[in-house]
Amino acid sequence: MALHIEKIATSKISEVDFSNLKFGQVFTDHMFECDFENGAWQTPKIRPYQALSIDPSAKVFHYGQAVFEGMKAYKDDNDEIWLFRPEQNQERINKSAERLDMPAFPKEYFMEGLNTLLKMDSEWVKKGENNALYIRPFVIATENCVSASSSTNYKFMIICSPVQGYYAGEVKVVFADKYSRAANGGVGFAKAAGNYAASFYPAKLAANDGYQQIVWTDASTHEYLEEAGTMNVFFRINDTLYTAPTSDRILDGVTRKSIIELAKSEDINVEVRKISVKEIVEAAKKGELLEMFGTGTAVVISPISAFSNKGENFDLPKLENSYAALLKKKMTDIQRNLSEDKFGWRVKVQ
Amino acid sequence: MALHIEKIATSKISEVDFSNLKFGQVFTDHMFECDFENGAWQTPKIRPYQALSIDPSAKVFHYGQAVFEGMKAYKDDNDEIWLFRPEQNQERINKSAERLDMPAFPKEYFMEGLNTLLKMDSEWVKKGENNALYIRPFVIATENCVSASSSTNYKFMIICSPVQGYYAGEVKVVFADKYSRAANGGVGFAKAAGNYAASFYPAKLAANDGYQQIVWTDASTHEYLEEAGTMNVFFRINDTLYTAPTSDRILDGVTRKSIIELAKSEDINVEVRKISVKEIVEAAKKGELLEMFGTGTAVVISPISAFSNKGENFDLPKLENSYAALLKKKMTDIQRNLSEDKFGWRVKVQ
Ligand SMILES: Cc1ncc(COP(=O)(O)O)c(C=O)c1O
Ligand SMILES: Cc1ncc(COP(=O)(O)O)c(C=O)c1O
Repeated sequence: MALHIEKIATSKISEVDFSNLKFGQVFTDHMFECDFENGAWQTPKIRPYQALSIDPSAKVFHYGQAVFEGMKAYKDDNDEIWLFRPEQNQERINKSAERLDMPAFPKEYFMEGLNTLLKMDSEWVKKGENNALYIRPFVIATENCVSASSSTNYKFMIICSPVQGYYAGEVKVVFADKYSRAANGGVGFAKAAGNYAASFYPAKLAANDGYQQIVWTDASTHEYLEEAGTMNVFFRINDTLYTAPTSDRILDGVTRKSIIELAKSEDINVEVRKISVKEIVEAAKKGELLEMFGTGTAVVISPISAFSNKGENFDLPKLENSYAALLKKKMTDIQRNLSEDKFGWRVKVQ
Repeated sequence: MALHIEKIATSKISEVDFSNLKFGQVFTDHMFECDFENGAWQTPKIRPYQALSIDPSAKVFHYGQAVFEGMKAYKDDNDEIWLFRPEQNQERINKSAERLDMPAFPKEYFMEGLNTLLKMDSEWVKKGENNALYIRPFVIATENCVSASSSTNYKFMIICSPVQGYYAGEVKVVFADKYSRAANGGVGFAKAAGNYAASFYPAKLAANDGYQQIVWTDASTHEYLEEAGTMNVFFRINDTLYTAPTSDRILDGVTRKSIIELAKSEDINVEVRKISVKEIVEAAKKGELLEMFGTGTAVVISPISAFSNKGENFDLPKLENSYAALLKKKMTDIQRNLSEDKFGWRVKVQ
């Protein structure tokens, strides 16, 4: 694969305080970029991280034709860098792109581009339990035309940001009963840019009430629990874990599917089926709802300490040996090369 | 209002072939721009139309936090330039912005900025029935941070594009029965960027079958007709015009509300109520469905010649004296200062 490389003159890494990072605000020295023009992806390039020059009429600004991915790289004690199931993200960005009528990005470009970028910026991946490099592949529509139709031109990019933990404190959630994230036959299953903006206002209302996340429900009836803003959601009733099936409204999370496999291999009973608000409220009242947690690349697993339904708050018990804690440990050990990886999920950058 | 103005050195207008314009691809000499920083809109400026310098981590690229408007200016035979109900677009962009958790843009900035821009670029507004200046106000999230939450920074812009007619040929539509545009409790009523990207793939499928537009139905049941991609839709059964009520899924179109008023003042019976696919199909079969047309700023009125429902095509009759033709004439005469404007819709640029 041809790849144009332009290196930075001097790294800006010495200016960065790695012990005090805000999520997604600091970027590494280089970025990967590839333009789709005249019906084909052009030669990809890696160049110094910098601002883009984009016409105000670029379709991404007007029609939200943009998709993205979120991945993480980890550095182990031997300075090896590891990715977690990167082919999942590579496939998913193309699924998202298809739904938004954007061209698929070649697998080879994605994998080799990412690999080369990570090697060039390897100093930015820090060791230690709390450190990771967050990787953001994305595609934007760059045709200069304010007519509401698919773009002819696109830009695929990968930018990387060193990060620490995502959620500082405990996470309390609201079950959505008015606003919605996704329609049947819509783009909820895609990591389409517009899905996220649509959730900011309801999230602000929830935050005003002291809840950090919303668990979205089906838009037609608000009776079934689907997923959170950037996490899939699991419920533990007695000793069984439940999570909603994926659909055209729900993102097929890489962490979600890995947690399902991991839980099964730990002999935890997992059921993937529709979950009603009613049964969760009832289980909570009976004391049978033992845990709730979100799963996602950014958070890995984020335990949920309380939920609110139609204005009523339910606190979850504090467990000694929670599934969330067990699965998070197993998962991060695999991700960080601290344990055997019988699933073959870990991929070395080399 | 303080406004920084930087004029172009030489106009590029002589390079433009005004008899052969593609919609939304050519822009005037100047653009209006205003940044939201530190919790406030800064001094607006008008400067030469040019590319923006934007960081790849700007939130608009990742989370689709962007809203826009579409307006038109017309030049009459006395070289006066006219806007159509501009305060409607000014109010609506702020409604859209609120739903996407973006700050409202001050009315005075919008109106004065637009007015000054149009005066500076007045040569770009051409006279004649088929000519107009399409005006695109929009707001994008510019905070540099790949964390899925509302931006702290925004950019409001107005860019302008000289245009001719929007649809070249006849318009045939498909009634949506699988894909959806908007969820209950979603952002369908807003001119949110992401709504449009979500419609491109279904639109492509429709285009493959020879249909130029989709008439969206409610996502829950697909039983009720809502609106098209960039048009509200009217149905004429016998001598009554029907259009769906606005809701949180449907854009409150300026053309739609004006056509309703105009039709009433022409003693045409107009009913705003839910319209089922079933009744339209039945009316078509009985020969009582006399017209269908879309309304929107870009098209004004676009007659629909056929619709497809679940794979079955229905052609509409060709009428001599259609409501569409009558209302389009009345409407454009008002817009272009060719008739009295008893509604007070026309606003002079001065
Ligand atoms: C809407 C949504 N749901 C769930 C997830 C979790 O997916 P993954 O585990 O692949 O990161 C994400 C993103 O990370 C998301 O954006
Ligand atoms: C989704 C949608 N519906 C309807 C319309 C028509 O609205 P208006 O008449 O205000 O242009 C538009 C835009 O122009 C639109 O984007």
